[in-house]
Amino acid sequence: MIRVGVNGYGTIGKRVADAVAAQPDMKVVGVTKTSPDYGAEAAIQRGYDLYAAIDDRSGAFEDAGLGIAGTLGDLLDAVDVIVDCAPAGVGERNRPTYEAHGVSAIYQGGEDAALADGSFNARGSPEISDADSLRVVSCNTTGLSRLLAPLEEAYGVEKARVTLVRRGGDPSETDRGPINDVVPDPKTVPSHHGPDVNTILPDVDIDTAALKAPVTGMHTHSVNVTLDEQPTSAEVRELLRAEARLFLIPEGSGIDGAGTLKDYAADVGRPRGDLWENCIWEESIRAEGRDLYLFQNVHQEADVVPENVDAIRTLASDASREASVTRTNEALGVGL
Amino acid sequence: MIRVGVNGYGTIGKRVADAVAAQPDMKVVGVTKTSPDYGAEAAIQRGYDLYAAIDDRSGAFEDAGLGIAGTLGDLLDAVDVIVDCAPAGVGERNRPTYEAHGVSAIYQGGEDAALADGSFNARGSPEISDADSLRVVSCNTTGLSRLLAPLEEAYGVEKARVTLVRRGGDPSETDRGPINDVVPDPKTVPSHHGPDVNTILPDVDIDTAALKAPVTGMHTHSVNVTLDEQPTSAEVRELLRAEARLFLIPEGSGIDGAGTLKDYAADVGRPRGDLWENCIWEESIRAEGRDLYLFQNVHQEADVVPENVDAIRTLASDASREASVTRTNEALGVGL
Amino acid sequence: MIRVGVNGYGTIGKRVADAVAAQPDMKVVGVTKTSPDYGAEAAIQRGYDLYAAIDDRSGAFEDAGLGIAGTLGDLLDAVDVIVDCAPAGVGERNRPTYEAHGVSAIYQGGEDAALADGSFNARGSPEISDADSLRVVSCNTTGLSRLLAPLEEAYGVEKARVTLVRRGGDPSETDRGPINDVVPDPKTVPSHHGPDVNTILPDVDIDTAALKAPVTGMHTHSVNVTLDEQPTSAEVRELLRAEARLFLIPEGSGIDGAGTLKDYAADVGRPRGDLWENCIWEESIRAEGRDLYLFQNVHQEADVVPENVDAIRTLASDASREASVTRTNEALGVGL
Amino acid sequence: MIRVGVNGYGTIGKRVADAVAAQPDMKVVGVTKTSPDYGAEAAIQRGYDLYAAIDDRSGAFEDAGLGIAGTLGDLLDAVDVIVDCAPAGVGERNRPTYEAHGVSAIYQGGEDAALADGSFNARGSPEISDADSLRVVSCNTTGLSRLLAPLEEAYGVEKARVTLVRRGGDPSETDRGPINDVVPDPKTVPSHHGPDVNTILPDVDIDTAALKAPVTGMHTHSVNVTLDEQPTSAEVRELLRAEARLFLIPEGSGIDGAGTLKDYAADVGRPRGDLWENCIWEESIRAEGRDLYLFQNVHQEADVVPENVDAIRTLASDASREASVTRTNEALGVGL
Ligand SMILES: NC(=O)c1ccc[n+]([C@@H]2O[C@H](COP(=O)([O-])OP(=O)(O)OC[C@H]3O[C@@H](n4cnc5c(N)ncnc54)[C@H](O)[C@@H]3O)[C@@H](O)[C@H]2O)c1
Ligand SMILES: NC(=O)c1ccc[n+]([C@@H]2O[C@H](COP(=O)([O-])OP(=O)(O)OC[C@H]3O[C@@H](n4cnc5c(N)ncnc54)[C@H](O)[C@@H]3O)[C@@H](O)[C@H]2O)c1
Ligand SMILES: NC(=O)c1ccc[n+]([C@@H]2O[C@H](COP(=O)([O-])OP(=O)(O)OC[C@H]3O[C@@H](n4cnc5c(N)ncnc54)[C@H](O)[C@@H]3O)[C@@H](O)[C@H]2O)c1
Ligand SMILES: NC(=O)c1ccc[n+]([C@@H]2O[C@H](COP(=O)([O-])OP(=O)(O)OC[C@H]3O[C@@H](n4cnc5c(N)ncnc54)[C@H](O)[C@@H]3O)[C@@H](O)[C@H]2O)c1
Repeated sequence: MIRVGVNGYGTIGKRVADAVAAQPDMKVVGVTKTSPDYGAEAAIQRGYDLYAAIDDRSGAFEDAGLGIAGTLGDLLDAVDVIVDCAPAGVGERNRPTYEAHGVSAIYQGGEDAALADGSFNARGSPEISDADSLRVVSCNTTGLSRLLAPLEEAYGVEKARVTLVRRGGDPSETDRGPINDVVPDPKTVPSHHGPDVNTILPDVDIDTAALKAPVTGMHTHSVNVTLDEQPTSAEVRELLRAEARLFLIPEGSGIDGAGTLKDYAADVGRPRGDLWENCIWEESIRAEGRDLYLFQNVHQEADVVPENVDAIRTLASDASREASVTRTNEALGVGL
Repeated sequence: MIRVGVNGYGTIGKRVADAVAAQPDMKVVGVTKTSPDYGAEAAIQRGYDLYAAIDDRSGAFEDAGLGIAGTLGDLLDAVDVIVDCAPAGVGERNRPTYEAHGVSAIYQGGEDAALADGSFNARGSPEISDADSLRVVSCNTTGLSRLLAPLEEAYGVEKARVTLVRRGGDPSETDRGPINDVVPDPKTVPSHHGPDVNTILPDVDIDTAALKAPVTGMHTHSVNVTLDEQPTSAEVRELLRAEARLFLIPEGSGIDGAGTLKDYAADVGRPRGDLWENCIWEESIRAEGRDLYLFQNVHQEADVVPENVDAIRTLASDASREASVTRTNEALGVGL
Repeated sequence: MIRVGVNGYGTIGKRVADAVAAQPDMKVVGVTKTSPDYGAEAAIQRGYDLYAAIDDRSGAFEDAGLGIAGTLGDLLDAVDVIVDCAPAGVGERNRPTYEAHGVSAIYQGGEDAALADGSFNARGSPEISDADSLRVVSCNTTGLSRLLAPLEEAYGVEKARVTLVRRGGDPSETDRGPINDVVPDPKTVPSHHGPDVNTILPDVDIDTAALKAPVTGMHTHSVNVTLDEQPTSAEVRELLRAEARLFLIPEGSGIDGAGTLKDYAADVGRPRGDLWENCIWEESIRAEGRDLYLFQNVHQEADVVPENVDAIRTLASDASREASVTRTNEALGVGL
Repeated sequence: MIRVGVNGYGTIGKRVADAVAAQPDMKVVGVTKTSPDYGAEAAIQRGYDLYAAIDDRSGAFEDAGLGIAGTLGDLLDAVDVIVDCAPAGVGERNRPTYEAHGVSAIYQGGEDAALADGSFNARGSPEISDADSLRVVSCNTTGLSRLLAPLEEAYGVEKARVTLVRRGGDPSETDRGPINDVVPDPKTVPSHHGPDVNTILPDVDIDTAALKAPVTGMHTHSVNVTLDEQPTSAEVRELLRAEARLFLIPEGSGIDGAGTLKDYAADVGRPRGDLWENCIWEESIRAEGRDLYLFQNVHQEADVVPENVDAIRTLASDASREASVTRTNEALGVGL
């Protein structure tokens, strides 16, 4: 059993904890919180041992009537791998602590690529060995890597151009805007998302342009890929349909956006209505000459979750990539 | 076992089906759909027998590769109670069909009160006997009845004045607005919501004013009740805390709106992130003289669901109200 | 001519400058900016002399090719009244500077009431003399004072209860949320808005409850007033219609929210589509016994503007309140 | 003087009327309304003669106290050109009436291209003669044509790929969604917008993908153009800066979206805060090899307005295109 801790039980951390708990070869030793809010209470209700992320806040948990099992240091003493799910940039500050305890670490996409021994995406990264730390790339980069890897393999990518219409904030972030505006962010094109894809797929020529919209549900990608070869639309559909972490939204299903996608996810019993897969509108997939077009939605809170599980196995087991992905998918139920 | 059918497997229907399936004394015989969209596919995945709501559309299901068990008539032949969850106004057109098959029927809040033998709320309605049909009142009326019934009993209500800030549409309704506007709807005050509360609590003097806002998550009620007696804020909090279908959002929990409420619901494992309970901000409960104030949120998709279960038992069993509510709450896990 | 300066040429400041410029007895000596953004350029295009609000940023304006006439100190040397329109709380820091230059000052509603010699609303405040500084109360308080003053005079107010559905941010504030949420803010009831009304109408018993919604256009007030006397709905309509700074939105006009209100304002030639008046839906005005109900919208960017003009005359002229209001209304074109 | 009538005084109609009224060589004979709402009242306030668009509704105007000058037929008898600004598709039904009266007609972009003798954009269309009717292309097509025409002329366009993030509805349309969703609309790529551009620029190879977002302010275009030649970013900026109906948003201006753009428009005195120009973020303009990228915003309510004026001159005068554009720009004040 791989003993796993989650440092930062927020949007990503709570999902990673649940996904780890669902794996037959892993165990959640505990999760950390910085304060005794509703998330802390729910962690305990779910049966996770709770640790104080910051030593001198232990008392606040007691005051709130929430029993803790220790502090971050105690958790690090008891795990093989720590998954850092603290806010962007905080992972960098946590790294010396992890190293001092000699535990392997997973970081999230909000951190600098240089922080870890490598960046990770289960579909796009090459086999990795001898790493002590990995950075699971961001939700957008994860979504793009999963899509571009098979296209590159099957047809070759001459150039990818993607407009990312990003959600303004997660559903629980009421201090995030914009209201009634679509904001170029960054205003310069190309955005940093393309280079981030290159940490996974170094040879893919990609330019990205990013906007921020007043929605909380999902990111929407408007994708154009000029391919080296010229497939038919049908061939591309079959290629993508065969990928376990891509969901082709069937024509005629009535799914028209993030709202219906999440409704469907809940309908089929997904915890939190989570969509671990890229969601691609089947009828949007269109090859015009060597130009391929499609729309995909990416659930920012969820798509990196199975990747974190695979990253843990990469650091702490001998399982092959393929074996890990299969196991993760089965344990979670990935595939719609 | 009470044999139950659901006619109209949409936002409310799918939730009612799941809640019925969770009851030890009930069984979902089948659910109907008008077309083979994602909801139909999901119904089958969940294990419900699917029936065509409209006879001549049976073929469309076959074409889509979805096997159906029959049409509405077949379903009606096999159930004790049909729960009509068709769009507002359609229940009225369905009623003769139900009567022709001699089945008891539950209607939803979008229908006229006169359509059924009585209007129903498990907390507010008097004991009902000899009814062949019931109308479960709307999400807003359900939320108000649950709140006002204990206040009326404990202190007497001289006058209730409520501003309803309603969600513009459900998350899956992309054709609903407004965008960037708060719209008086209706423009006249008081709105029809007060009289609807009187179908449950006929003696409560209540005026309501209704607005529509660009949100999909929940309705928000700004409540003022002038009481006959003058309790302390603390007394009211204890009174409301004792009600199983009222959730007092704890101070310091970090829950600040519909987004965090649903996040918490998902955290504790609620299917679809559903909140069956009224969600009342504890710190908003304030008695100023005989004037009581509070904010409550009502999950429009979910709060009527346990009420539908209790309404079924009212029509098709001898269980007392209290016994039914206890059983429903336990089977579903109502209470946060 | 009253010589006026505007310190802080933002949302409120730019409107106050234009309103002052439109007065026959006033002159805009200059306006300040902290940085050479689009607002600074537009100020110059409009013909206002530009001053650097912060001394050591003068160079930034030069670099941007925008000529400035001096710094705040120079402006203060040339004016009779300075209107502080800096962000909330900054006015307090500016006060010693104004005093050192011996100029009268107007502050905005974001400042503490104690900062100025008095709080001001042209309809609700008593006659003021011998003041060196005034605080024009906030947009919400202005809107409530204008409404409650005539009601108090005509019928007596036993108790006012108002739910404020506030806009999340102004149209130009893309960093403001919430998205898809209605947030109790503050969570406690009553909110601070009621006491702020009492700085204008000390004897009115008022409780307010405040929400924040994902809109940028206007605030919406759901108003209940229990009156001492019992007028008819028609009488209240006539009373309110007679008030120059209240606009009764006619039935049948098709105006259903902030969007259409601003469209109408633009239709009739209002600069910036500004609505200086409270906008009250005529058909919402309803007297039920002694309980009066209505919905009003308040344009947060605009309603305080004529009040600022009247506040300037209060500090720097002998004009009576009535004479000032008449003059302001005529010069601006207040009244729809 | 060209005598002009506007049939359909809505979002576009009211702006066209004002723009025509501002031309030295044109006169607004009258405008039509279908009902006496706020727009009708405002038309009269602005001094336009009002005609009933539909004969048998004349009485409704009288009832509302709004004097009308006649019906559509009377208006058609008195004009040289009628500008049809009725809802999409209604123009087609109106055409026989216009023809029966022998007046030249302008239609809007919601109509089929085949309805008129030609489609029109002042920058992109070739010289037109002998036409009796023209269709001013839609707001999106207008924005794209203005941008692509100079690029095609200067460098040649190998392929244009544009993602259109469209506003869900205009500010006055409260029944339009989506709320909290970005919706592929149409789901298929390419969308119909590309072929519509080809009614103006037949030789430009363009693919468009269209989304709908919960905003009311402007459309946002994420543009990629593969050019035949390879200019520098600076050269493209200069090329576009020279175009009168393109506004390059300066770096450092603080303009970050539709909200600040309209704030700026109002700051410089634009009626209704209208932006007749494409608004292109200067720093987004980036040439990477032969690939050009940029973001532009298009004010859907306004950009077609100067085009309508030029279309009128095309039908009813001998003015050259260039002379017309210059005159229109001067009379309106186009150019920021
Ligand atoms: N939310 C997304 O859409 C998303 C998607 C992919 C990747 N990411 C990345 O995942 C990481 C986490 O983001 P999130 O959205 O879950 O954030 P979050 O704010 O929801 O959760 C972060 C959690 O970390 C806790 N925390 C704060 N300081 C801490 C500390 N010093 N030590 C330990 N815990 C601390 C917070 O209390 C919170 O519970 C970031 O790097 C982010 O960029 C986020
Ligand atoms: N959604 C809410 O917020 C809410 C809350 C409380 C009560 N209600 C009430 O519940 C009822 C259902 O509302 P909903 O929101 O679930 O609607 P919905 O549109 O989500 O679902 C209605 C379902 O009925 C199906 N249907 C349509 N015509 C039918 C017919 N003739 N026979 C059978 N099925 C048919 C539709 O295909 C759809 O699946 C309405 O009365 C509504 O007023 C809705
Ligand atoms: N916007 C509203 O809805 C509204 C309504 C009524 C009252 N108010 C009040 O009006 C005041 C101004 O608010 P606003 O919305 O116009 O803010 P704003 O941010 O739009 O404008 C403030 C301006 O002041 C400038 N500024 C910043 N620091 C300064 C300094 N030290 N000296 C001088 N200028 C400085 C800013 O650059 C900006 O141009 C606040 O007290 C606010 O509470 C705002
Ligand atoms: N609003 C936009 O964003 C936009 C942009 C570019 C082009 N257009 C096109 O302009 C046209 C008008 O659109 P709009 O947005 O101004 O619509 P609108 O709904 O704002 O205005 C249409 C007006 O026409 C009136 N009308 C309805 N039926 C009529 C009839 N039979 N005869 C005469 N008038 C009638 C309506 O009452 C309304 O006043 C459409 O073709 C539309 O596609 C709209």
